[in-house]
Order: sequence, then structure tokens, then C-alpha cells
Amino acid sequence: MGRWEPDAPGRFRAAAMELFVERGYEQTTVADIAARAGLTGRTFFRYFADKREVLFDGSARLQKMMVEALERAPAQATAMEAIGAAVLATAPFFSDNRAFGRQRSRVIAAHAELRERELIKLATLAAALAEGLRRRGVGEPDASLASEAGIAVFRVAFATWVGESEQRSFDEIVSGSLARLRALTAIA
Amino acid sequence: MGRWEPDAPGRFRAAAMELFVERGYEQTTVADIAARAGLTGRTFFRYFADKREVLFDGSARLQKMMVEALERAPAQATAMEAIGAAVLATAPFFSDNRAFGRQRSRVIAAHAELRERELIKLATLAAALAEGLRRRGVGEPDASLASEAGIAVFRVAFATWVGESEQRSFDEIVSGSLARLRALTAIA
Repeated sequence: MGRWEPDAPGRFRAAAMELFVERGYEQTTVADIAARAGLTGRTFFRYFADKREVLFDGSARLQKMMVEALERAPAQATAMEAIGAAVLATAPFFSDNRAFGRQRSRVIAAHAELRERELIKLATLAAALAEGLRRRGVGEPDASLASEAGIAVFRVAFATWVGESEQRSFDEIVSGSLARLRALTAIA
Repeated sequence: MGRWEPDAPGRFRAAAMELFVERGYEQTTVADIAARAGLTGRTFFRYFADKREVLFDGSARLQKMMVEALERAPAQATAMEAIGAAVLATAPFFSDNRAFGRQRSRVIAAHAELRERELIKLATLAAALAEGLRRRGVGEPDASLASEAGIAVFRVAFATWVGESEQRSFDEIVSGSLARLRALTAIA
């Protein structure tokens, strides 16, 4: 291991996003990212498997936040209340990063390979939530349905949050989306 | 074009699935599939881009069934009623194919590349449904939320339908899943 660099992952993330936006994702190499960050490629690989992971390395932390929130939810909470709490618990992850989130969304939307990766990460999140609900004693198909619905709210809320002129906070948008889902599925 | 072969796609599909189950997906070549089907590789490529497409070529038809059902739904139907009708409209696609569906699910579950492809197809279906709802005048985020919720029901219902000892029909399971989603999202 080399010497410790203060917030090396954050510096790589910011440098990578600058370059993805300036030059395009394909045209950016790990060497470019390291040079822009003022760090070495060797340090890069201490934190990320490849340049793609700069865009996705947050997902393990997201999953942890969601699953822990599920576990903290009161025993009498319904499956959907627990899922709602899990989605809302991710708000701190997004709070200060709307500009990064917007750029990330644009880069991902422009590359089929990255869109696939995003779908896989979301499916993994849904599976982790369903597993968490089953540990709370929720049976099937309820555990899977509630988790998939929660991830639908998460995706739609995230897409809204990174919208061009959107000003509302992530948790405000999630709360609104959960309420909309409830209204949509209610008997007319 | 060579001479016409009665139900060539169906014969390729059956042959491919037999071989995927017997030898494994990787170990099966297009030449193997053609030989087992009693047809030529050249005829295979008239219907499928590669062996993977044997497992996924139904998705265009599925999407058409869903989008047409959305369009047929009465103008006064709610977004979720229209989506429910779209998911139910796929039942004829599955009616006689539970054995194929079970084998297909097992092959896909065993290969990351195929799981990714499945996720992409489902995301494409959700996007087509959201587009159909917007054409019906449903705004955002409702169109996306209702579509994603509908695809969640579709996925969970399909997974249930191919379950080991499951006997209920696809549309019975879909109706049950839609009712469960409604119950789950209702205020406790």
C-alpha cells in the first residue's frame, strides 16, 4: 500500500466525472483519471476495479443503508412501510450530490453497457430488500412485490431528482412518489 | 431464402432448450441446435441472431400484446387498471408453455449474461408501457410508477407461475399479485 491520500476515492470520482463529460466515457482512461486527480493509477486500482466502478461503487453503501433501515423499522410496520423507510433512508447519500447525480445519469443514459450495469445494481438492491422483508417474516409474493415496488419508487424518484430544474430534496420526492404509488394502486 | 419449413422457430426453440438442459447453455452451438431440429444453421439465422435470442425472441410479441391491451383499455380506466389489463393480456403467451418457461427460467438463472439480458428486456417493456400511458394522457411520475409496478407484478407472477409445483394459471396468479400489490400499498 502506498501513502494515504486524503479522500482519494472522492478525488477520483470528481476527476472521472469531469473527464467523462469533457471527453466522453470511452475516450477516458484510468491514466487520464489518475492524472486529473493528481494521484497514481496504482492508487486508483486500490479503490476501483475499473473506470466503470467509479459510477457504481456507491451501490454497496446504498444497499447497506436500505437493509439497515429495514431492520430498524418497528416490528408492527407493514411491509410497505418498512420498504418506504428503507428508500427514505438513502436520502443522506444523495443530499449534496445533485450535480454529480445529474452528470452520472447522463453518462449512464448514453451507454448501453452502463445502463445494463445500473439495472443489475437495482435488481440486486431489490433482492436484498426482499431478503430483508423475509427475515421480518413477510411471505411471498408480498416480500418480492413490496421490494420491487420500492425499487420502482426509488428509480422514479431518482430520475425526478436529477431532472433539469428540479429543486425539491430527494426525500421530499420519495415521499411524494410513495404517496402517488399508493393512490395509483388504490381501487378507483 | 431457402424452402419454407413448417414452424421452424418453434422447432429451433424446442431443440435449443433440450440441448441447454442436457449439455448446458455454453456447450451448445447453433450447429448443434440446427442438427437437433433437423434444419440448417442457415435457416436458424433467418430467425435468430444468435443462440441467446432463442430465449428472448418472444419479448417483442409480449410487448405488442401489452401495448395493444393498454390502447384497448376504456378511456375512463385508471392508469393501474390499464396496466393490469396489459399484464393480464399476456396470459395467452404463457398458457401452454409452462414446461418451457420452467426450463427457460433455470437456464437464465444460471447465467449472469442471460440474467442481464432479461433485465434489459423487462426495462424495455416498462418503458413501452410508460410511453403507452403517457399517450393516454397520464402524466409523470404516475406513468413511470404504474408501469414499473406493473412490471414488478409481471416478474413476480412469472416467477410464481414457473414454481416447482405451481398449478394455477398465469392470469389467476397475475390477478392475485395485482390484488396483493393493492393491499400492500394501502394505508395500514
